[in-house]
Amino acid sequence: MTRKSADNGSRSTIRDVAARAGVSAATVSRVLGGVYPVSATTRTRVMRAVRDLDYVADARAKAVAGVGTPTLGFVLDDITGPSFALMAHGVEREATRLGHLCLVCSTDGDAQHELDFVETMRAQRAAAVILVGGGADTPEYRARTAHVADALAAAGSRLVLCGRPPLDPGAPVTVIEYDNEGGAYALCSHVLTQGHRRILFLGGKPDHTTAQGRERGYLAAHRARGVETDPALRLTGDFTRDSGYRLMRQALDAALEFTAVMAATDMVAAGALTALHEAGLTVPGDVSLVGYDDIPFARDLHPALTTVHVPYAELGRLAVRTALGRERGSSSDEHLLLGTHVVVRDSVGAVRS
Amino acid sequence: MTRKSADNGSRSTIRDVAARAGVSAATVSRVLGGVYPVSATTRTRVMRAVRDLDYVADARAKAVAGVGTPTLGFVLDDITGPSFALMAHGVEREATRLGHLCLVCSTDGDAQHELDFVETMRAQRAAAVILVGGGADTPEYRARTAHVADALAAAGSRLVLCGRPPLDPGAPVTVIEYDNEGGAYALCSHVLTQGHRRILFLGGKPDHTTAQGRERGYLAAHRARGVETDPALRLTGDFTRDSGYRLMRQALDAALEFTAVMAATDMVAAGALTALHEAGLTVPGDVSLVGYDDIPFARDLHPALTTVHVPYAELGRLAVRTALGRERGSSSDEHLLLGTHVVVRDSVGAVRS
Repeated sequence: MTRKSADNGSRSTIRDVAARAGVSAATVSRVLGGVYPVSATTRTRVMRAVRDLDYVADARAKAVAGVGTPTLGFVLDDITGPSFALMAHGVEREATRLGHLCLVCSTDGDAQHELDFVETMRAQRAAAVILVGGGADTPEYRARTAHVADALAAAGSRLVLCGRPPLDPGAPVTVIEYDNEGGAYALCSHVLTQGHRRILFLGGKPDHTTAQGRERGYLAAHRARGVETDPALRLTGDFTRDSGYRLMRQALDAALEFTAVMAATDMVAAGALTALHEAGLTVPGDVSLVGYDDIPFARDLHPALTTVHVPYAELGRLAVRTALGRERGSSSDEHLLLGTHVVVRDSVGAVRS
Repeated sequence: MTRKSADNGSRSTIRDVAARAGVSAATVSRVLGGVYPVSATTRTRVMRAVRDLDYVADARAKAVAGVGTPTLGFVLDDITGPSFALMAHGVEREATRLGHLCLVCSTDGDAQHELDFVETMRAQRAAAVILVGGGADTPEYRARTAHVADALAAAGSRLVLCGRPPLDPGAPVTVIEYDNEGGAYALCSHVLTQGHRRILFLGGKPDHTTAQGRERGYLAAHRARGVETDPALRLTGDFTRDSGYRLMRQALDAALEFTAVMAATDMVAAGALTALHEAGLTVPGDVSLVGYDDIPFARDLHPALTTVHVPYAELGRLAVRTALGRERGSSSDEHLLLGTHVVVRDSVGAVRS
């Protein structure tokens, strides 16, 4: 997918395709129309030019879309993650309100999968494509995503990153984030003020930017109070319930010393809570526990979980409004940051003296 | 969206469209190609014929899809429902394994929204469209869905219904279900064998087929043991956590007499559990509680929830395999039923004498 002249915002025309393929515009039309016979060689040449130039014919895409409902794409890693589902719900509601059909793609973190979806959305002339969730911030990621942003911009669409690692300045992208590190900082401070000094951190994947941000907040809160952190208390897993259960069992088996647990997500906290109960420990009597995300289930855990509220549905709605409300042709980058806050429930107690 | 000759499986050709619009095939091609000028009247006439005949040009759709990754559509009511998310995950995994991109649409139960998505999928030449979740089984639903099935079949695609009300015999549709009523019957029997005779039922919407099936299982289990049911113990709400919380508070405020609670879903059970705890009641000491669906969180509730396991991920995988593995041109209906089973955990106790 080589792109063409995205910098000046112009789109490839059928004449560009014809020139590149060395055929007439009428031949390109015949190949794309698929109605009249064309030789295989010609077809291959034209289709390669179409791909090279990221060519999209407006009316054709609209004709194929049939009813002409404009679309909007939403990409998440894992559809079973409740926080992403809340955001998807916000996106879907707002898209519907603004007359757009929202297509969701769950990629399991597969980059090729994501590219396939974006390409399908681009060909559909989707008004915007929203990518959510952290990931590894590598040069490869930045290059690939910047290319996606350019290709979408060239097709009159817009890339929106939600909680994703941002790109280099100048990329035609809208970035919407929540205060990930700040939420973790406030949460960990709340635990520290209850006298806890050895707080087990059940983290995500080491190269996952969301997990990193939450760990940074944990460390910064300790530093701000002059409390040493013990690297042995920072475990890594992923953001699932099973990871929380496994890591907590591991910590208990290893007889790690801690009086509180900060889980990277509410799902992780749910698994950890069950492991604590199974070990005969009470929360918050024996061990305090906090999560992150404030998914609806957090208040149904027993005890109800103290956690960080992330305005996921609002993030989703804002992503849609921002993407669809943009002035046509504006290509500057935009960056919005939503606040987070601690929701105090019943899972944290003062440390036993 | 009038359809044409779906019964013999043939698709409309560009000549059919031209004949209906009263123009030449070349004009149709020009309109769809969107490249050469055409009068507005002609365009309108052609586009109306395209819609009337459900016309889809193969190569054009593929050209627009660009990279040519074949797609598959998945429609659910509510993306925040964990059971649907599990199914979507199964669908997505299996679709990826078989080289298809899965596009998900969450409709909030809006029929027009669903039609828009199906139309987009049909124009995309999606290999199949999977609709999940119960709903109201009305003549309007049957007519609309049968039409969707025909339109997809005529375009070489396939409609799959997962846990949806089935259509009249002969519709070109694959139906995949789980034993919804049987699971509720087994679960309620389990509660009855513990001596409970007044079991509060926290149901879904009265016209929702999935909710109805679960209530039928509840009633049948009572009948099988010659236990009278009290209509006052059957409340209706929806399948959310908030509904469970609200209904349980309502039941407690009304001083209804019951020793056990059967919630229509695990989410409903989670909300009910919190309301019971808030009222100072213990589970299963004072009240027994069961759910339905076996979502991952069920085992993290305290006590761990006894529930019905529904093989959601397997349902999703099976839907994809069945839809993609079909012989081309076969139009017979198919019907598959997966089993469910009770998962006994810690939330049911023997009734106090």
